[in-house]
Amino acid sequence: AMDGAPPPSSPTGLSAFVAVSQLLGLTLLATTGAWLGRYRGGVAWHSPLQFNAHPLCMVLGMVFLQGDALLVYRVFRHEAKRSSRALHALLHGLALVIALVGIIAVFESHRAKGIPDMYSLHSWCGMATFVLYLLQWLLGCGFFLFPGASFSLRGWYKPQHIFFGVTLFILSITSCLLGITEMLLFKLSDSYSHFVPEGILANTLGVLLVAFGLVVGYVLTREEWKRPPLAEELALSMDFKTLTEGESPGG
Amino acid sequence: AMDGAPPPSSPTGLSAFVAVSQLLGLTLLATTGAWLGRYRGGVAWHSPLQFNAHPLCMVLGMVFLQGDALLVYRVFRHEAKRSSRALHALLHGLALVIALVGIIAVFESHRAKGIPDMYSLHSWCGMATFVLYLLQWLLGCGFFLFPGASFSLRGWYKPQHIFFGVTLFILSITSCLLGITEMLLFKLSDSYSHFVPEGILANTLGVLLVAFGLVVGYVLTREEWKRPPLAEELALSMDFKTLTEGESPGG
Repeated sequence: AMDGAPPPSSPTGLSAFVAVSQLLGLTLLATTGAWLGRYRGGVAWHSPLQFNAHPLCMVLGMVFLQGDALLVYRVFRHEAKRSSRALHALLHGLALVIALVGIIAVFESHRAKGIPDMYSLHSWCGMATFVLYLLQWLLGCGFFLFPGASFSLRGWYKPQHIFFGVTLFILSITSCLLGITEMLLFKLSDSYSHFVPEGILANTLGVLLVAFGLVVGYVLTREEWKRPPLAEELALSMDFKTLTEGESPGG
Repeated sequence: AMDGAPPPSSPTGLSAFVAVSQLLGLTLLATTGAWLGRYRGGVAWHSPLQFNAHPLCMVLGMVFLQGDALLVYRVFRHEAKRSSRALHALLHGLALVIALVGIIAVFESHRAKGIPDMYSLHSWCGMATFVLYLLQWLLGCGFFLFPGASFSLRGWYKPQHIFFGVTLFILSITSCLLGITEMLLFKLSDSYSHFVPEGILANTLGVLLVAFGLVVGYVLTREEWKRPPLAEELALSMDFKTLTEGESPGG
């Protein structure tokens, strides 16, 4: 709003859903912290508790921050796209760094305890998700942040970027649920089936992860909540359309 | 094509993706059958093998048939919507019946072996998915198959139906992955971490389930592949638009 007019407001429903998503995100972190703190001895790095950094980092990075990065274009719907794009890339970058710490935690803890790596479905899904997420981030920076890519190349890549972005977010949550199941079966074994409090708490964390994904997914896919193109973007894309259709750009 | 004109063709890319989805679907069934047949003694009802009916029914009903039901509007893009709608409901109905058999299998097998029910994250996610899937089917029939619902009510419900339909398909696949992880940790325990063939096969089934979901999801969400409205539907919705906007229906 450079012209001094009052800033345009967001649709009411959108604000409510975004607020719920943030409350759910914080609840995710609190529930993970409660699980690890109350039942698993807490989190520490150079110690037998190093493994516990893994679930905490993955929930914070691959779920909460990744989800918030996806919401950037809905929340900042009237800012210049350039700023939203930078914030989107920054949040994903932060998520990647935190996830990397979480991955180092599990590999180092496996090495310390002599446990083999990468044999479980959780590790296959999780590692594939992380590697593809890194690739998606690099491609996203290449196509949208650096000035090299042409307009038509960006236009071709954008729907792929969105589809794979949502897919990777879903796969991240799925990988967390697989990790929760593995951890409960390893640590609780028989007592899991007797509805001990730790099992119920960790199952609830799984349900909250699904709920966070649902709310973020609903906000992202609702047609009326998509970011409206700004006046200058419309002009640009019209110019582009007339250019590719072989006419002269209109004023 | 009642007027005798040649039937309009589907976009080439769409046909290829649908073909791949069906190959993947059949591979899912073959892989599940190979796992249960080669490593788990096969499938039988009144026997200790009754449990094995559970994964087979869930993969067939909640994944393959549910996925195909979602693809109906893309595959039959030029048929009358009424026929596609009936097939969509029929495939989901069949999926529900087969899933119910799979659920009975696990409850009866738990009872026979004295194992408690509904304590794991897999059971929570799976049961919630099944109950909501049944509810979604009933609502879908009520809104779209029976003549009671008004045009505006259908228009309001349709985007919700689509969002929750895709969500339930994703949750179904997630529940399968959780079930595979549980089953491998119960049956293989320590040998899972030594990369035994059964573990690799079942992990591969998990990857194939994700691949099936990815291909179906890509077909469903690609904008150019959405079902084009038929001439008579366009006329109807225009009439509806002018009606709700308070103008007289145009010819």
